[in-house]
Amino acid sequence: MIRKPSILVTNDDGIHAPGIFALWEAMREMGDVTVVAPDTEKSAVGHAITISDPIRIQKVTRHDGFEGFAVKGTPADCVKIAVRALMDTQPDIVISGINLGANVGNNIIYSGTVSAATEGTMLNIPSLAVSLDAIKGGDLNPAKKVAVRVVRKILQKGLPTGTLLNVNVPNVPMNKIRGFKITRQGNVYFKDWFETREDPRGRLYYWMTGEIVDPNNGPGFDSHAIQSGFVSITPIHYQLTNMPFLNELETWDFRDLD
Amino acid sequence: MIRKPSILVTNDDGIHAPGIFALWEAMREMGDVTVVAPDTEKSAVGHAITISDPIRIQKVTRHDGFEGFAVKGTPADCVKIAVRALMDTQPDIVISGINLGANVGNNIIYSGTVSAATEGTMLNIPSLAVSLDAIKGGDLNPAKKVAVRVVRKILQKGLPTGTLLNVNVPNVPMNKIRGFKITRQGNVYFKDWFETREDPRGRLYYWMTGEIVDPNNGPGFDSHAIQSGFVSITPIHYQLTNMPFLNELETWDFRDLD
Repeated sequence: MIRKPSILVTNDDGIHAPGIFALWEAMREMGDVTVVAPDTEKSAVGHAITISDPIRIQKVTRHDGFEGFAVKGTPADCVKIAVRALMDTQPDIVISGINLGANVGNNIIYSGTVSAATEGTMLNIPSLAVSLDAIKGGDLNPAKKVAVRVVRKILQKGLPTGTLLNVNVPNVPMNKIRGFKITRQGNVYFKDWFETREDPRGRLYYWMTGEIVDPNNGPGFDSHAIQSGFVSITPIHYQLTNMPFLNELETWDFRDLD
Repeated sequence: MIRKPSILVTNDDGIHAPGIFALWEAMREMGDVTVVAPDTEKSAVGHAITISDPIRIQKVTRHDGFEGFAVKGTPADCVKIAVRALMDTQPDIVISGINLGANVGNNIIYSGTVSAATEGTMLNIPSLAVSLDAIKGGDLNPAKKVAVRVVRKILQKGLPTGTLLNVNVPNVPMNKIRGFKITRQGNVYFKDWFETREDPRGRLYYWMTGEIVDPNNGPGFDSHAIQSGFVSITPIHYQLTNMPFLNELETWDFRDLD
């Protein structure tokens, strides 16, 4: 395209997270960037939207040149309000990240990072989520380069209606990335339990905690790719019907209501 | 089964909503019911979970006999904490609802009602969500009877791993329900925009608003079934990979990283 692409950048770690700064740096070399992100961390909010409270927006301008809009809301709110209220025209692409921590397997349904890309997809904008497999930080440079490459490809090729790309980058130096794998969503999940504590007034409260469990998925799955040093790219859609089971369900007899 | 089934009842409208009371009434006729629900309305929270704050729980005992646990958290939190911390043994079934307002089409990804059933599914418990196509209330009795019927069927037949049933009931008297339809998730969506207002100190704030749009889906889809007077039952799973697009994506060349 002749004009520069319009790129909407968001995340779920909040507008002051290092990952969104890295993404802003990477994207502004290729397009006109608008940053609209939650004012504070919104991890694990899934596809929440804010309908019972008003949404407030604060302009952010920093000395390092970074500019954006901080939204008192969820990642999905950010994309909605950016497209519907803040931007003059629909962006060419929505990119969410760079999340610190992989978004793979079952866990993607809890992911605010992925939900922002989902919201872009719902608004008929090609969208992607980018995550780095490093919860406590890591080198963001490889993920920046990967993001640029995938965005270029999407701008060139487009994406099918209702489908986003979920990109996960292994936490290794650039020269150790072995390439790209197109993958399926695997079965990694968070096996959780609750730690019970007593407050000074003797009342109980609970902290959710747990550990990531990765049933052995083998080649072809998202987590296997990143563990093997590849960038994982999974095409995700929101047609949730279990079609193979639909036929069996047809044979169940629900008719005889009391 | 000889022993009574153990039934976990939850919702997203909050523990004091009429829909969960109706569900409790219906379910206690067939099993041992545990109610664990958000302390306040949590509509549109999607699959949010609470990881940055502690979760508090309050026992609720009312004069009408209704008992349960009110959780300061999301519907997904409620199911997790019920199974992991409050109940001695895993329930035989998780049922979420009765939601006031249908959960069909694209909108199910925002639904707290459906997310509670999803969480049950993730914990390997057969689960279902029940919604009544009446946002401002309606007769809950037909939906109660439908819920009993579907729960009985699930307890008898089981559900495939990772699959829940999303049940939507038309807002008509029992004798006007035409039967059950096994359906696919359609494309109903919420076309949203933002109303901008100014607070007394001159700062802007935004309310999300909009309208439900139903592209003409025709027979076989969830919304079409309820509009035609049928109970809609959609089998939902969380394998989100767009498999048909996977092969095309394999042909994209991402390899030449800078």
